Amino acid sequence: MKTLKDVGEHNAIAALTANLKTVGDDCAVLPLDTHYDLVLTTDPLISGIHFAPDTPPEQIGWKAAARVLSDFAAMGADPQYLLINLVAPPEQEFQTLEKIYDGVSRLRKLFGVDLVGGDLSQGPVLELHVFGVGRVPKGKALLRSGARPGDIIYVTGLLGGSFANGKHLTFMPRVKEGKWLRQSGFVTAMMDISDGLATDLRHILKASKVGAALDSTAIPKNGTLEQALFDGEDFELLFTVRPEDADAFDFQCLEDLEQSFPRIGTVTDQPELLTLDGTVLKRKAFEHFKGES
Amino acid sequence: MKTLKDVGEHNAIAALTANLKTVGDDCAVLPLDTHYDLVLTTDPLISGIHFAPDTPPEQIGWKAAARVLSDFAAMGADPQYLLINLVAPPEQEFQTLEKIYDGVSRLRKLFGVDLVGGDLSQGPVLELHVFGVGRVPKGKALLRSGARPGDIIYVTGLLGGSFANGKHLTFMPRVKEGKWLRQSGFVTAMMDISDGLATDLRHILKASKVGAALDSTAIPKNGTLEQALFDGEDFELLFTVRPEDADAFDFQCLEDLEQSFPRIGTVTDQPELLTLDGTVLKRKAFEHFKGES
Repeated sequence: MKTLKDVGEHNAIAALTANLKTVGDDCAVLPLDTHYDLVLTTDPLISGIHFAPDTPPEQIGWKAAARVLSDFAAMGADPQYLLINLVAPPEQEFQTLEKIYDGVSRLRKLFGVDLVGGDLSQGPVLELHVFGVGRVPKGKALLRSGARPGDIIYVTGLLGGSFANGKHLTFMPRVKEGKWLRQSGFVTAMMDISDGLATDLRHILKASKVGAALDSTAIPKNGTLEQALFDGEDFELLFTVRPEDADAFDFQCLEDLEQSFPRIGTVTDQPELLTLDGTVLKRKAFEHFKGES
Repeated sequence: MKTLKDVGEHNAIAALTANLKTVGDDCAVLPLDTHYDLVLTTDPLISGIHFAPDTPPEQIGWKAAARVLSDFAAMGADPQYLLINLVAPPEQEFQTLEKIYDGVSRLRKLFGVDLVGGDLSQGPVLELHVFGVGRVPKGKALLRSGARPGDIIYVTGLLGGSFANGKHLTFMPRVKEGKWLRQSGFVTAMMDISDGLATDLRHILKASKVGAALDSTAIPKNGTLEQALFDGEDFELLFTVRPEDADAFDFQCLEDLEQSFPRIGTVTDQPELLTLDGTVLKRKAFEHFKGES
């Protein structure tokens, strides 16, 4: 009998959700009314997997909520509500849980998001399951499937070393940038980087049926190139812009955001082929259940 | 330092969510548009807590989704979308997970609910966290806070023995009944029975600032009176009807649903006082973390 470890996380999700058409982007986008689409997402945060048991509790709460807000950022959507299922052992100190909620509250207040429900249950280790509800103007959500050959590939910030330097616990989700990028009208595809640039870019390539050529010198690195490509948990936005719009886009970024985003590569017409400096890039991704780290 | 076990589940939820006004009913109800309110809920299902490790996987999936649909039933709301966070150990057989999803699908197809997202993560035991999204006509959700002195207390079905006889794994959530009860216009307060009649009725009493007098002979029992009062996981609906409407309500039930619901007691004007056959009923509730079962 095959176990989850044999199958791997991404394959397992793909197999279990094969007949559901809305799964695949960072959030599900569903019709709401004449003006808006409903945007839904959920992320787990599990002790020993997503954070070390000795992590300060405020940071646990912050990360749990920030991961979900980053999913909204990835679609250019507005997060509105959160619900949290908390799991904890009976011997868990109650004060720790209060501090976890403080971490959630600190972040959700920054973005005007309400915590409206959830549950608390006994279990072997500390876990948070955060469910997010929001909206986006009808038909305007940025998907992974919109990249076209020739598009320029951008990223919003430094990649790599997030686990080592603690950024994965304190990062600011790119909600404002995501919304601006959507409103700019220049972006053709977008997602957030949770599993590492090399792995997540492949999701865009698959969904858009295109390839990509990356330029190693252009990738903004926090550490080595290897780390920038494979570490994961950066929670920066990865997006593509039509080549004829790229200069206007760069200008508009400086004008509105007072910053520019690096161009790290180009979309090609070779489906799912990812190259780095002209050489095919091998897969090496963190994936749950397969024991790599 | 106080632990979760010291504090208890309900007290912990109350403390952690003290400043959130929408927590307290079975679902959160939020403004959506001019016609509808948005209805959100979430329930965990954890191996060793909510189901035995040897439970058939289809029943695990069924129960996980049915608990969430029961929350919608409790408000008279329409469930529309589900998202599922699945947690499993790496050595979990993949086929078991497929069967869990089959159980979810069998139920959600019965009620026309779409599974639109979720996540899969490694963890020490098998868990499902199901998030539900739905809607209800604006201002029409049935809350726990609407009961008034004199109202008649009803329940939709047999209470007690649900763990022993397996009903907790195979029950049909009362979505259709809940919607009919809301549309009837006769119901003043409603919730579903998950922690046992005696415990859950107290939630209505607290929210409505009233008391209740139960008639032991009128309670529909699956087993002993003790079981009917305290077992929990019945997932029947508990609701109240204005006394002047009760006869018309009973007639309408027979007419539309071809069944009648038993009258099990009366709402009184003594806040939070619960009596059974004229005697004050002591608390004895299953509560996570406190080690009672």
